[in-house]
Amino acid sequence: MRRHRHRFRVIYGDTDMMGVVYYANYFRYFEAGRGAFFRAAGVDYREIEAAGIIVPVASASAKYYAPAHYDDELTIDVAVTEVGFSRLRFQYEIVRESDATRIATGETAHAFLSRTKGLVRIPDDLRAILKEDNEAS
Amino acid sequence: MRRHRHRFRVIYGDTDMMGVVYYANYFRYFEAGRGAFFRAAGVDYREIEAAGIIVPVASASAKYYAPAHYDDELTIDVAVTEVGFSRLRFQYEIVRESDATRIATGETAHAFLSRTKGLVRIPDDLRAILKEDNEAS
Amino acid sequence: MRRHRHRFRVIYGDTDMMGVVYYANYFRYFEAGRGAFFRAAGVDYREIEAAGIIVPVASASAKYYAPAHYDDELTIDVAVTEVGFSRLRFQYEIVRESDATRIATGETAHAFLSRTKGLVRIPDDLRAILKEDNEAS
Amino acid sequence: MRRHRHRFRVIYGDTDMMGVVYYANYFRYFEAGRGAFFRAAGVDYREIEAAGIIVPVASASAKYYAPAHYDDELTIDVAVTEVGFSRLRFQYEIVRESDATRIATGETAHAFLSRTKGLVRIPDDLRAILKEDNEAS
Repeated sequence: MRRHRHRFRVIYGDTDMMGVVYYANYFRYFEAGRGAFFRAAGVDYREIEAAGIIVPVASASAKYYAPAHYDDELTIDVAVTEVGFSRLRFQYEIVRESDATRIATGETAHAFLSRTKGLVRIPDDLRAILKEDNEAS
Repeated sequence: MRRHRHRFRVIYGDTDMMGVVYYANYFRYFEAGRGAFFRAAGVDYREIEAAGIIVPVASASAKYYAPAHYDDELTIDVAVTEVGFSRLRFQYEIVRESDATRIATGETAHAFLSRTKGLVRIPDDLRAILKEDNEAS
Repeated sequence: MRRHRHRFRVIYGDTDMMGVVYYANYFRYFEAGRGAFFRAAGVDYREIEAAGIIVPVASASAKYYAPAHYDDELTIDVAVTEVGFSRLRFQYEIVRESDATRIATGETAHAFLSRTKGLVRIPDDLRAILKEDNEAS
Repeated sequence: MRRHRHRFRVIYGDTDMMGVVYYANYFRYFEAGRGAFFRAAGVDYREIEAAGIIVPVASASAKYYAPAHYDDELTIDVAVTEVGFSRLRFQYEIVRESDATRIATGETAHAFLSRTKGLVRIPDDLRAILKEDNEAS
Protein backbone atom coordinates (compact mmCIF):
# COMPACT_ATOMS: atom_id res chain seq x y z
CA MET A 1 0.00 0.00 0.00
CA ARG A 2 1.12 3.53 -0.64
CA ARG A 3 2.64 5.70 2.06
CA HIS A 4 4.08 9.17 2.25
CA ARG A 5 6.13 11.22 4.69
CA HIS A 6 5.42 14.91 5.17
CA ARG A 7 7.19 17.54 7.27
CA PHE A 8 5.59 20.51 8.91
CA ARG A 9 6.16 23.07 11.62
CA VAL A 10 4.03 23.70 14.73
CA ILE A 11 2.73 27.29 14.79
CA TYR A 12 1.86 29.31 17.88
CA GLY A 13 -1.83 29.12 17.05
CA ASP A 14 -1.70 25.32 17.27
CA THR A 15 -0.69 25.41 20.93
CA ASP A 16 -2.91 25.85 23.97
CA MET A 17 -2.43 27.18 27.49
CA MET A 18 -0.85 23.87 28.51
CA GLY A 19 2.04 25.00 26.31
CA VAL A 20 1.62 22.11 23.89
CA VAL A 21 -0.26 21.37 20.68
CA TYR A 22 -4.02 21.26 21.32
CA TYR A 23 -5.37 17.75 20.84
CA ALA A 24 -7.87 18.61 18.07
CA ASN A 25 -5.12 20.11 15.93
CA TYR A 26 -3.57 16.70 15.35
CA PHE A 27 -6.55 15.94 13.13
CA ARG A 28 -5.62 19.01 11.08
CA TYR A 29 -2.08 17.57 10.83
CA PHE A 30 -3.50 14.22 9.72
CA GLU A 31 -5.42 16.03 6.99
CA ALA A 32 -2.37 18.02 5.90
CA GLY A 33 -0.56 14.69 5.69
CA ARG A 34 -3.34 13.18 3.55
CA GLY A 35 -3.19 16.21 1.27
CA ALA A 36 0.56 15.77 0.83
CA PHE A 37 0.01 12.02 0.27
CA PHE A 38 -2.44 12.66 -2.58
CA ARG A 39 -0.24 15.33 -4.13
CA ALA A 40 2.81 13.05 -4.03
CA ALA A 41 0.73 10.30 -5.63
CA GLY A 42 -0.21 12.62 -8.47
CA VAL A 43 -3.87 12.70 -7.43
CA ASP A 44 -5.61 16.07 -7.52
CA TYR A 45 -8.17 15.82 -4.76
CA ARG A 46 -9.97 18.88 -6.12
CA GLU A 47 -10.70 16.97 -9.33
CA ILE A 48 -12.35 14.20 -7.33
CA GLU A 49 -14.72 16.75 -5.77
CA ALA A 50 -15.18 18.50 -9.12
CA ALA A 51 -16.43 15.15 -10.45
CA GLY A 52 -19.21 15.20 -7.86
CA ILE A 53 -17.55 12.80 -5.41
CA ILE A 54 -16.96 13.75 -1.80
CA VAL A 55 -14.85 11.75 0.60
CA PRO A 56 -16.08 12.60 4.09
CA VAL A 57 -14.44 11.22 7.22
CA ALA A 58 -16.46 8.38 8.73
CA SER A 59 -14.34 7.98 11.84
CA ALA A 60 -11.13 9.35 13.29
CA SER A 61 -8.96 8.54 16.27
CA ALA A 62 -5.68 9.60 17.81
CA LYS A 63 -3.37 8.46 20.58
CA TYR A 64 -1.12 11.02 22.19
CA TYR A 65 2.28 9.79 23.40
CA ALA A 66 4.29 12.95 24.02
CA PRO A 67 3.51 16.64 23.73
CA ALA A 68 4.66 18.69 20.74
CA HIS A 69 5.68 22.29 21.24
CA TYR A 70 5.73 25.55 19.34
CA ASP A 71 8.19 25.58 16.43
CA ASP A 72 8.81 21.83 16.61
CA GLU A 73 9.45 20.35 13.22
CA LEU A 74 7.36 17.22 12.98
CA THR A 75 7.20 14.42 10.45
CA ILE A 76 3.97 12.67 9.68
CA ASP A 77 4.02 9.26 8.05
CA VAL A 78 0.72 8.59 6.23
CA ALA A 79 -0.08 5.06 5.09
CA VAL A 80 -3.11 3.53 3.38
CA THR A 81 -4.22 0.50 5.36
CA GLU A 82 -7.45 -0.46 3.56
CA VAL A 83 -8.96 0.12 0.14
CA GLY A 84 -12.45 -1.34 0.16
CA PHE A 85 -15.32 -0.99 -2.30
CA SER A 86 -16.06 2.57 -1.27
CA ARG A 87 -14.09 2.78 1.95
CA LEU A 88 -10.56 4.00 2.46
CA ARG A 89 -8.51 3.84 5.64
CA PHE A 90 -5.36 5.75 6.59
CA GLN A 91 -2.91 5.37 9.46
CA TYR A 92 -0.70 8.18 10.73
CA GLU A 93 2.38 8.45 12.88
CA ILE A 94 3.77 11.80 13.94
CA VAL A 95 7.39 11.87 15.08
CA ARG A 96 9.75 14.63 16.20
CA GLU A 97 12.89 13.51 14.49
CA SER A 98 15.23 15.88 16.34
CA ASP A 99 14.93 13.67 19.43
CA ALA A 100 13.27 10.59 17.89
CA THR A 101 10.13 11.06 19.96
CA ARG A 102 6.86 9.51 18.86
CA ILE A 103 4.28 12.24 19.40
CA ALA A 104 1.00 10.75 18.21
CA THR A 105 -0.57 8.07 16.06
CA GLY A 106 -3.98 8.00 14.49
CA GLU A 107 -6.40 6.55 12.01
CA THR A 108 -9.14 7.87 9.76
CA ALA A 109 -11.74 6.05 7.67
CA HIS A 110 -13.32 7.70 4.64
CA ALA A 111 -16.25 6.88 2.39
CA PHE A 112 -16.53 7.69 -1.30
CA LEU A 113 -19.90 9.32 -1.81
CA SER A 114 -21.56 10.64 -4.92
CA ARG A 115 -23.53 13.80 -4.13
CA THR A 116 -26.46 12.21 -5.93
CA LYS A 117 -26.07 8.42 -5.67
CA GLY A 118 -24.69 7.69 -2.20
CA LEU A 119 -21.77 5.29 -1.76
CA VAL A 120 -19.77 4.72 -4.93
CA ARG A 121 -16.92 2.42 -5.83
CA ILE A 122 -13.46 3.95 -5.57
CA PRO A 123 -12.37 4.48 -9.21
CA ASP A 124 -9.96 1.83 -10.53
CA ASP A 125 -7.15 4.20 -11.42
CA LEU A 126 -7.22 5.72 -7.93
CA ARG A 127 -7.48 2.23 -6.42
CA ALA A 128 -4.33 1.17 -8.26
CA ILE A 129 -2.45 4.24 -7.04
CA LEU A 130 -3.53 3.69 -3.43
CA LYS A 131 -2.58 0.03 -3.44
CA GLU A 132 0.84 0.53 -4.98
CA ASP A 133 3.76 -0.26 -2.69
CA ASN A 134 6.02 2.75 -2.77
CA GLU A 135 8.83 3.93 -0.57
CA ALA A 136 7.98 6.60 1.96
CA SER A 137 9.67 9.74 0.70
CA MET B 1 -28.36 51.24 13.15
CA ARG B 2 -28.98 47.78 14.52
CA ARG B 3 -26.82 46.25 17.22
CA HIS B 4 -26.78 43.05 19.20
CA ARG B 5 -25.09 41.67 22.26
CA HIS B 6 -23.97 38.06 22.40
CA ARG B 7 -22.39 36.02 25.19
CA PHE B 8 -19.95 33.21 24.78
CA ARG B 9 -17.38 31.21 26.67
CA VAL B 10 -13.66 30.86 25.92
CA ILE B 11 -12.73 27.21 25.32
CA TYR B 12 -9.32 25.63 25.94
CA GLY B 13 -8.72 25.28 22.23
CA ASP B 14 -9.01 29.06 21.80
CA THR B 15 -6.00 29.68 24.02
CA ASP B 16 -2.32 29.51 23.11
CA MET B 17 0.89 28.82 25.02
CA MET B 18 0.90 32.40 26.30
CA GLY B 19 -2.10 31.28 28.37
CA VAL B 20 -4.50 33.67 26.66
CA VAL B 21 -6.84 33.65 23.68
CA TYR B 22 -4.86 33.43 20.42
CA TYR B 23 -5.20 36.64 18.43
CA ALA B 24 -6.72 35.07 15.31
CA ASN B 25 -9.55 33.55 17.32
CA TYR B 26 -11.04 36.98 17.98
CA PHE B 27 -12.06 37.02 14.33
CA ARG B 28 -13.95 33.79 14.98
CA TYR B 29 -15.64 35.54 17.90
CA PHE B 30 -16.52 38.49 15.66
CA GLU B 31 -18.14 36.05 13.23
CA ALA B 32 -20.05 34.26 15.99
CA GLY B 33 -21.29 37.72 17.03
CA ARG B 34 -22.39 38.51 13.47
CA GLY B 35 -24.22 35.20 13.31
CA ALA B 36 -26.06 35.97 16.54
CA PHE B 37 -26.78 39.48 15.22
CA PHE B 38 -28.43 38.12 12.07
CA ARG B 39 -30.39 35.50 13.97
CA ALA B 40 -31.68 38.08 16.46
CA ALA B 41 -32.69 40.30 13.52
CA GLY B 42 -34.70 37.44 12.03
CA VAL B 43 -32.37 37.13 9.05
CA ASP B 44 -31.42 33.61 7.96
CA TYR B 45 -27.95 34.03 6.53
CA ARG B 46 -28.18 30.59 4.90
CA GLU B 47 -31.10 31.86 2.78
CA ILE B 48 -28.94 34.71 1.51
CA GLU B 49 -26.36 32.20 0.30
CA ALA B 50 -29.06 29.87 -1.02
CA ALA B 51 -30.21 32.82 -3.20
CA GLY B 52 -26.78 32.89 -4.84
CA ILE B 53 -25.42 35.82 -2.85
CA ILE B 54 -22.19 35.55 -0.89
CA VAL B 55 -20.99 38.14 1.58
CA PRO B 56 -17.21 37.75 1.83
CA VAL B 57 -15.11 39.79 4.20
CA ALA B 58 -13.27 42.61 2.41
CA SER B 59 -11.24 43.74 5.39
CA ALA B 60 -10.93 42.99 9.08
CA SER B 61 -9.09 44.53 11.99
CA ALA B 62 -8.76 44.12 15.75
CA LYS B 63 -7.20 45.96 18.66
CA TYR B 64 -6.28 43.94 21.72
CA TYR B 65 -6.56 45.72 25.08
CA ALA B 66 -6.38 42.96 27.66
CA PRO B 67 -5.96 39.19 27.45
CA ALA B 68 -8.92 36.83 27.79
CA HIS B 69 -8.43 33.49 29.50
CA TYR B 70 -9.84 29.99 29.41
CA ASP B 71 -13.42 29.76 30.65
CA ASP B 72 -13.91 33.53 30.66
CA GLU B 73 -17.45 34.51 29.84
CA LEU B 74 -17.23 37.30 27.31
CA THR B 75 -19.82 39.61 25.82
CA ILE B 76 -19.52 40.85 22.27
CA ASP B 77 -21.42 43.93 21.19
CA VAL B 78 -21.95 43.91 17.41
CA ALA B 79 -23.09 47.10 15.68
CA VAL B 80 -23.71 47.96 12.03
CA THR B 81 -21.81 51.14 11.21
CA GLU B 82 -22.37 51.42 7.45
CA VAL B 83 -24.90 50.14 4.95
CA GLY B 84 -23.74 51.18 1.49
CA PHE B 85 -24.90 50.11 -1.95
CA SER B 86 -23.29 46.70 -1.68
CA ARG B 87 -21.02 47.24 1.29
CA LEU B 88 -21.72 46.53 4.93
CA ARG B 89 -19.58 47.43 7.89
CA PHE B 90 -19.66 46.07 11.45
CA GLN B 91 -17.97 47.17 14.65
CA TYR B 92 -17.30 44.90 17.60
CA GLU B 93 -16.44 45.32 21.24
CA ILE B 94 -15.61 42.37 23.45
CA VAL B 95 -15.90 42.90 27.20
CA ARG B 96 -15.44 40.63 30.20
CA GLU B 97 -18.32 41.80 32.32
CA SER B 98 -17.22 40.04 35.52
CA ASP B 99 -14.52 42.69 35.98
CA ALA B 100 -15.65 45.27 33.40
CA THR B 101 -12.52 44.79 31.30
CA ARG B 102 -12.48 45.76 27.65
CA ILE B 103 -10.72 42.89 25.91
CA ALA B 104 -10.78 43.81 22.23
CA THR B 105 -12.46 45.89 19.58
CA GLY B 106 -12.65 45.33 15.87
CA GLU B 107 -14.19 46.06 12.52
CA THR B 108 -15.10 44.09 9.44
CA ALA B 109 -16.26 45.23 6.00
CA HIS B 110 -18.28 42.95 3.75
CA ALA B 111 -19.35 43.06 0.12
CA PHE B 112 -22.56 41.62 -1.31
CA LEU B 113 -21.60 39.55 -4.32
CA SER B 114 -23.72 37.58 -6.72
CA ARG B 115 -21.91 34.39 -7.75
CA THR B 116 -22.69 35.34 -11.34
CA LYS B 117 -23.01 39.13 -11.50
CA GLY B 118 -20.38 40.56 -9.16
CA LEU B 119 -21.30 43.31 -6.68
CA VAL B 120 -25.05 43.58 -6.04
CA ARG B 121 -27.20 46.02 -4.12
CA ILE B 122 -28.07 44.95 -0.58
CA PRO B 123 -31.76 43.94 -0.75
CA ASP B 124 -34.18 46.60 0.55
CA ASP B 125 -35.77 44.44 3.23
CA LEU B 126 -32.36 43.51 4.64
CA ARG B 127 -31.25 47.15 4.35
CA ALA B 128 -34.24 48.25 6.44
CA ILE B 129 -33.48 45.65 9.10
CA LEU B 130 -29.81 46.65 9.29
CA LYS B 131 -30.59 50.36 9.56
CA GLU B 132 -33.22 50.00 12.25
CA ASP B 133 -32.27 51.47 15.61
CA ASN B 134 -32.86 48.77 18.17
CA GLU B 135 -31.77 48.27 21.72
CA ALA B 136 -28.82 45.99 22.25
CA SER B 137 -30.24 42.87 23.85
CA MET C 1 -21.73 8.58 36.73
CA ARG C 2 -22.20 12.27 36.07
CA ARG C 3 -23.41 13.58 32.74
CA HIS C 4 -24.26 16.96 31.28
CA ARG C 5 -25.99 18.32 28.23
CA HIS C 6 -24.68 21.44 26.52
CA ARG C 7 -26.03 23.43 23.58
CA PHE C 8 -24.01 25.32 21.06
CA ARG C 9 -24.23 26.82 17.62
CA VAL C 10 -22.12 25.98 14.55
CA ILE C 11 -20.24 29.04 13.29
CA TYR C 12 -19.14 29.68 9.72
CA GLY C 13 -15.50 29.16 10.67
CA ASP C 14 -16.29 25.61 11.79
CA THR C 15 -17.37 24.57 8.29
CA ASP C 16 -15.20 23.55 5.37
CA MET C 17 -15.57 23.63 1.60
CA MET C 18 -17.71 20.48 1.72
CA GLY C 19 -20.30 22.80 3.32
CA VAL C 20 -20.30 20.90 6.60
CA VAL C 21 -18.47 21.02 9.92
CA TYR C 22 -14.80 20.06 9.47
CA TYR C 23 -14.05 16.76 11.19
CA ALA C 24 -11.37 18.10 13.56
CA ASN C 25 -13.75 20.69 14.96
CA TYR C 26 -15.85 18.01 16.66
CA PHE C 27 -12.97 17.58 19.08
CA ARG C 28 -13.31 21.29 19.90
CA TYR C 29 -17.01 20.66 20.52
CA PHE C 30 -16.16 17.71 22.77
CA GLU C 31 -13.88 20.01 24.77
CA ALA C 32 -16.52 22.74 25.00
CA GLY C 33 -18.85 20.06 26.32
CA ARG C 34 -16.29 18.94 28.92
CA GLY C 35 -15.86 22.54 30.01
CA ALA C 36 -19.62 22.93 30.45
CA PHE C 37 -19.69 19.58 32.28
CA PHE C 38 -17.08 20.75 34.82
CA ARG C 39 -18.76 24.13 35.29
CA ALA C 40 -22.16 22.51 35.87
CA ALA C 41 -20.52 20.18 38.40
CA GLY C 42 -19.11 23.15 40.29
CA VAL C 43 -15.53 22.24 39.40
CA ASP C 44 -13.23 25.09 38.35
CA TYR C 45 -10.84 23.45 35.93
CA ARG C 46 -8.52 26.45 36.20
CA GLU C 47 -8.01 25.69 39.89
CA ILE C 48 -6.91 22.16 39.02
CA GLU C 49 -4.21 23.57 36.75
CA ALA C 50 -3.34 26.27 39.28
CA ALA C 51 -2.63 23.44 41.74
CA GLY C 52 0.04 22.10 39.38
CA ILE C 53 -2.08 19.33 37.87
CA ILE C 54 -2.61 19.03 34.14
CA VAL C 55 -5.10 16.71 32.53
CA PRO C 56 -3.86 16.07 29.00
CA VAL C 57 -5.81 13.98 26.51
CA ALA C 58 -4.34 10.49 26.13
CA SER C 59 -6.59 9.39 23.30
CA ALA C 60 -9.57 10.68 21.36
CA SER C 61 -11.93 9.26 18.79
CA ALA C 62 -15.04 10.25 16.87
CA LYS C 63 -17.59 8.61 14.60
CA TYR C 64 -19.43 10.80 12.15
CA TYR C 65 -23.02 9.83 11.34
CA ALA C 66 -24.49 12.86 9.60
CA PRO C 67 -23.08 16.24 8.60
CA ALA C 68 -23.78 19.36 10.66
CA HIS C 69 -24.19 22.68 8.89
CA TYR C 70 -23.62 26.36 9.54
CA ASP C 71 -25.95 27.82 12.17
CA ASP C 72 -27.19 24.40 13.30
CA GLU C 73 -27.97 24.33 16.99
CA LEU C 74 -26.44 21.17 18.34
CA THR C 75 -26.68 19.44 21.70
CA ILE C 76 -23.77 17.54 23.13
CA ASP C 77 -24.34 14.98 25.85
CA VAL C 78 -21.17 14.45 27.89
CA ALA C 79 -20.93 11.47 30.21
CA VAL C 80 -18.15 10.15 32.44
CA THR C 81 -17.61 6.48 31.68
CA GLU C 82 -14.55 5.67 33.79
CA VAL C 83 -12.87 7.14 36.84
CA GLY C 84 -9.68 5.21 37.46
CA PHE C 85 -6.71 5.90 39.72
CA SER C 86 -5.42 8.71 37.52
CA ARG C 87 -7.42 8.11 34.36
CA LEU C 88 -10.71 9.64 33.36
CA ARG C 89 -12.83 8.73 30.37
CA PHE C 90 -15.65 10.68 28.72
CA GLN C 91 -18.21 9.76 26.10
CA TYR C 92 -19.96 12.27 23.85
CA GLU C 93 -23.01 12.28 21.65
CA ILE C 94 -23.85 15.23 19.44
CA VAL C 95 -27.44 15.51 18.24
CA ARG C 96 -29.33 18.06 16.16
CA GLU C 97 -32.57 18.16 18.05
CA SER C 98 -34.52 20.10 15.43
CA ASP C 99 -34.71 16.94 13.32
CA ALA C 100 -33.54 14.36 15.89
CA THR C 101 -30.42 13.53 13.87
CA ARG C 102 -27.42 11.92 15.53
CA ILE C 103 -24.44 13.81 14.16
CA ALA C 104 -21.44 12.30 15.90
CA THR C 105 -20.28 10.32 18.89
CA GLY C 106 -16.87 10.23 20.50
CA GLU C 107 -14.66 9.35 23.40
CA THR C 108 -11.68 10.89 25.13
CA ALA C 109 -9.35 9.51 27.79
CA HIS C 110 -7.42 11.83 30.12
CA ALA C 111 -4.60 11.36 32.60
CA PHE C 112 -4.07 13.34 35.79
CA LEU C 113 -0.47 14.47 35.79
CA SER C 114 1.48 16.49 38.30
CA ARG C 115 3.92 18.79 36.52
CA THR C 116 6.60 17.47 38.88
CA LYS C 117 5.56 13.96 39.92
CA GLY C 118 3.98 12.30 36.90
CA LEU C 119 0.69 10.43 37.21
CA VAL C 120 -1.28 11.33 40.33
CA ARG C 121 -4.45 10.01 41.89
CA ILE C 122 -7.62 11.90 41.00
CA PRO C 123 -8.49 13.85 44.18
CA ASP C 124 -11.26 12.27 46.28
CA ASP C 125 -13.61 15.25 46.19
CA LEU C 126 -13.39 15.42 42.41
CA ARG C 127 -13.76 11.64 42.21
CA ALA C 128 -16.98 11.82 44.20
CA ILE C 129 -18.36 14.55 41.95
CA LEU C 130 -17.50 12.61 38.79
CA LYS C 131 -19.06 9.39 40.05
CA GLU C 132 -22.31 10.97 41.20
CA ASP C 133 -25.39 9.93 39.24
CA ASN C 134 -27.10 13.10 38.19
CA GLU C 135 -29.75 13.88 35.63
CA ALA C 136 -28.51 15.33 32.36
CA SER C 137 -29.60 18.95 32.40
CA MET D 1 14.52 46.40 7.47
CA ARG D 2 14.48 42.64 7.39
CA ARG D 3 12.02 40.66 5.31
CA HIS D 4 11.38 37.03 4.58
CA ARG D 5 9.38 34.98 2.13
CA HIS D 6 7.66 31.80 3.24
CA ARG D 7 5.66 29.20 1.28
CA PHE D 8 2.80 27.16 2.57
CA ARG D 9 -0.13 25.09 1.40
CA VAL D 10 -3.83 25.65 2.12
CA ILE D 11 -5.35 22.66 3.92
CA TYR D 12 -9.00 21.58 3.79
CA GLY D 13 -9.54 22.66 7.37
CA ASP D 14 -8.60 26.23 6.46
CA THR D 15 -11.53 26.54 4.07
CA ASP D 16 -15.14 27.32 4.87
CA MET D 17 -18.48 26.57 3.23
CA MET D 18 -17.93 29.44 0.78
CA GLY D 19 -15.23 27.17 -0.68
CA VAL D 20 -12.41 29.55 0.17
CA VAL D 21 -10.01 30.17 3.05
CA TYR D 22 -11.90 31.46 6.11
CA TYR D 23 -10.96 35.05 6.87
CA ALA D 24 -9.63 34.43 10.39
CA ASN D 25 -7.16 31.85 9.12
CA TYR D 26 -5.13 34.52 7.34
CA PHE D 27 -4.00 35.66 10.78
CA ARG D 28 -2.70 32.13 11.36
CA TYR D 29 -0.82 32.43 8.06
CA PHE D 30 0.61 35.79 9.17
CA GLU D 31 1.86 34.11 12.34
CA ALA D 32 3.35 31.18 10.44
CA GLY D 33 5.13 33.79 8.30
CA ARG D 34 6.46 35.58 11.41
CA GLY D 35 7.70 32.28 12.77
CA ALA D 36 9.55 31.54 9.53
CA PHE D 37 10.89 35.12 9.56
CA PHE D 38 12.39 34.68 13.04
CA ARG D 39 13.81 31.27 12.22
CA ALA D 40 15.45 32.56 9.04
CA ALA D 41 16.91 35.45 11.05
CA GLY D 42 18.45 33.01 13.51
CA VAL D 43 16.19 34.16 16.34
CA ASP D 44 14.69 31.45 18.55
CA TYR D 45 11.39 32.94 19.63
CA ARG D 46 11.07 30.29 22.36
CA GLU D 47 14.22 31.69 24.01
CA ILE D 48 12.63 35.13 24.14
CA GLU D 49 9.69 33.68 26.07
CA ALA D 50 12.00 31.55 28.20
CA ALA D 51 13.68 34.81 29.27
CA GLY D 52 10.36 36.04 30.66
CA ILE D 53 9.46 38.26 27.72
CA ILE D 54 6.18 37.88 25.87
CA VAL D 55 5.37 39.61 22.62
CA PRO D 56 1.57 39.81 22.41
CA VAL D 57 -0.22 41.23 19.40
CA ALA D 58 -1.49 44.76 20.04
CA SER D 59 -3.39 45.11 16.78
CA ALA D 60 -3.93 43.19 13.57
CA SER D 61 -5.58 43.89 10.26
CA ALA D 62 -6.08 42.27 6.88
CA LYS D 63 -7.41 43.20 3.47
CA TYR D 64 -8.74 40.43 1.27
CA TYR D 65 -8.26 40.86 -2.49
CA ALA D 66 -8.99 37.44 -3.94
CA PRO D 67 -10.04 34.12 -2.45
CA ALA D 68 -7.54 31.32 -1.86
CA HIS D 69 -8.65 27.73 -2.31
CA TYR D 70 -7.85 24.30 -0.96
CA ASP D 71 -4.40 23.04 -1.94
CA ASP D 72 -3.28 26.44 -3.25
CA GLU D 73 0.41 27.01 -2.69
CA LEU D 74 0.74 30.52 -1.31
CA THR D 75 3.72 32.73 -0.64
CA ILE D 76 3.75 35.15 2.25
CA ASP D 77 6.18 38.05 2.24
CA VAL D 78 6.82 39.26 5.81
CA ALA D 79 8.54 42.60 6.36
CA VAL D 80 9.40 44.56 9.48
CA THR D 81 8.08 48.11 9.09
CA GLU D 82 8.80 49.59 12.52
CA VAL D 83 11.15 48.84 15.41
CA GLY D 84 10.29 51.19 18.26
CA PHE D 85 11.36 51.21 21.89
CA SER D 86 9.18 48.25 22.78
CA ARG D 87 6.95 48.09 19.71
CA LEU D 88 7.42 46.06 16.57
CA ARG D 89 5.36 46.21 13.42
CA PHE D 90 5.11 43.71 10.55
CA GLN D 91 3.54 43.90 7.12
CA TYR D 92 2.40 40.88 5.13
CA GLU D 93 1.51 40.15 1.56
CA ILE D 94 0.12 36.80 0.48
CA VAL D 95 0.38 35.94 -3.20
CA ARG D 96 -0.54 32.87 -5.24
CA GLU D 97 2.42 32.72 -7.56
CA SER D 98 0.94 30.17 -9.96
CA ASP D 99 -1.29 32.90 -11.39
CA ALA D 100 0.35 35.99 -9.83
CA THR D 101 -2.76 36.81 -7.82
CA ARG D 102 -2.52 38.99 -4.75
CA ILE D 103 -4.68 37.26 -2.15
CA ALA D 104 -4.37 39.37 0.97
CA THR D 105 -2.26 41.93 2.78
CA GLY D 106 -2.07 42.67 6.48
CA GLU D 107 -0.32 44.26 9.38
CA THR D 108 0.35 43.36 13.00
CA ALA D 109 1.78 45.42 15.86
CA HIS D 110 3.45 43.75 18.83
CA ALA D 111 4.64 44.94 22.23
CA PHE D 112 7.61 43.57 24.17
CA LEU D 113 6.39 42.88 27.67
CA SER D 114 8.20 41.53 30.68
CA ARG D 115 5.89 39.26 32.67
CA THR D 116 6.92 41.25 35.76
CA LYS D 117 7.88 44.76 34.60
CA GLY D 118 5.49 45.69 31.80
CA LEU D 119 6.81 47.21 28.57
CA VAL D 120 10.51 46.60 27.99
CA ARG D 121 12.98 47.81 25.41
CA ILE D 122 13.56 45.45 22.50
CA PRO D 123 17.04 43.96 23.14
CA ASP D 124 19.82 45.54 21.05
CA ASP D 125 20.94 42.35 19.36
CA LEU D 126 17.39 41.57 18.25
CA ARG D 127 16.93 45.21 17.22
CA ALA D 128 19.99 44.99 14.96
CA ILE D 129 18.72 41.80 13.36
CA LEU D 130 15.28 43.28 12.71
CA LYS D 131 16.66 46.46 11.19
CA GLU D 132 19.11 44.75 8.88
CA ASP D 133 18.33 45.08 5.18
CA ASN D 134 18.34 41.63 3.74
CA GLU D 135 17.05 40.13 0.55
CA ALA D 136 13.75 38.32 0.74
CA SER D 137 14.65 34.66 0.38
